[in-house]
Amino acid sequence: MSAIDELTGELAKLPGIGRKTATRLTYFLLKQSPNDVARLADAIRAVSQRVRTCPVCGNLGESEPCDICQDERRDRALVCVVEEASDILPIERTGEYRGLYHVLGGHLSPLDGVGPDDLRMAALRRRLDNGSPVREVIVATNPSMEGEVTATYVRGLLEGTSVRVTRIALGLPIGGDLEYADGMTIAQALAARREMAG
Amino acid sequence: MSAIDELTGELAKLPGIGRKTATRLTYFLLKQSPNDVARLADAIRAVSQRVRTCPVCGNLGESEPCDICQDERRDRALVCVVEEASDILPIERTGEYRGLYHVLGGHLSPLDGVGPDDLRMAALRRRLDNGSPVREVIVATNPSMEGEVTATYVRGLLEGTSVRVTRIALGLPIGGDLEYADGMTIAQALAARREMAG
Repeated sequence: MSAIDELTGELAKLPGIGRKTATRLTYFLLKQSPNDVARLADAIRAVSQRVRTCPVCGNLGESEPCDICQDERRDRALVCVVEEASDILPIERTGEYRGLYHVLGGHLSPLDGVGPDDLRMAALRRRLDNGSPVREVIVATNPSMEGEVTATYVRGLLEGTSVRVTRIALGLPIGGDLEYADGMTIAQALAARREMAG
Repeated sequence: MSAIDELTGELAKLPGIGRKTATRLTYFLLKQSPNDVARLADAIRAVSQRVRTCPVCGNLGESEPCDICQDERRDRALVCVVEEASDILPIERTGEYRGLYHVLGGHLSPLDGVGPDDLRMAALRRRLDNGSPVREVIVATNPSMEGEVTATYVRGLLEGTSVRVTRIALGLPIGGDLEYADGMTIAQALAARREMAG
């Protein structure tokens, strides 16, 4: 196969990148300097060689445990449970959260054969064993059906521990438009309505 | 910089790939096997190392001259002039064209300081020198303002030669891009090509 077809094929395997986009990217790269192209190739290699899964929380990073788990200024009483390591980034960007994380590695999905044993559920339970500093677990799985089922499972898993289990609020997104929100979101936003300070 | 940030930054340099998509792609790659990731990195390196510009027509490929120029079954009386090497692919896919190509490497754009000397215009003229088998030049620059200006320039360049200069039919939507046109439209545009006024 030609180098052009080969790269186009590899790029087309990426999510959200179809044949046409892959072709466009290939020709774009052909116009770049060999140095720029090599930097991209090296970055791709490096990410798979240097990045590993944190044995504590399941986050991806280059240190073990990860930078967040090692950060002494973090509130060790707080653990935020997310589906994927990529969910940590948007939460970190808010600058509002100073606790730790726990990455499940997905959500429960019986139809796809994904049960509790396929997720990092046992590891979450172990983090709360005797002597654990954790006081609250914030369940931040996605606001989807599978995310809700997974959240409910986590709630049950932590039953009988002294840990407080909370769920991130579901409602209308800031800056969103009621007119374009779906019915389930509006219903959720109505049900979760809070008293306004007078 | 971390390997994740590094790769996200490199991916975000690609056209049409914003910060969010770059992050999504990085985390996608982190879930793939090291072998799959290495294959992508290798394909990127290979394309910049192995692919070169054809000295005859300006097409990109691994042989010199390119496969199309070397193909004995091609009609050497016919040369199709395109702006970019990536424009050849959609024309080839129609299966309707059996001539050769000439890649200009862009279009005339005085505002961006792109003049005839920045394109492969002189090389095109040389291809038609004494003894040339070329009988017709089909100008398939994009149906944009710059593409039209470039087509007109090519017409003037070939003034005084015995070569017939034709323009692909503007069945292509004005303001569109050849690279994204469908095969039937391109085939139609080739079939309905018309003589350019001298």
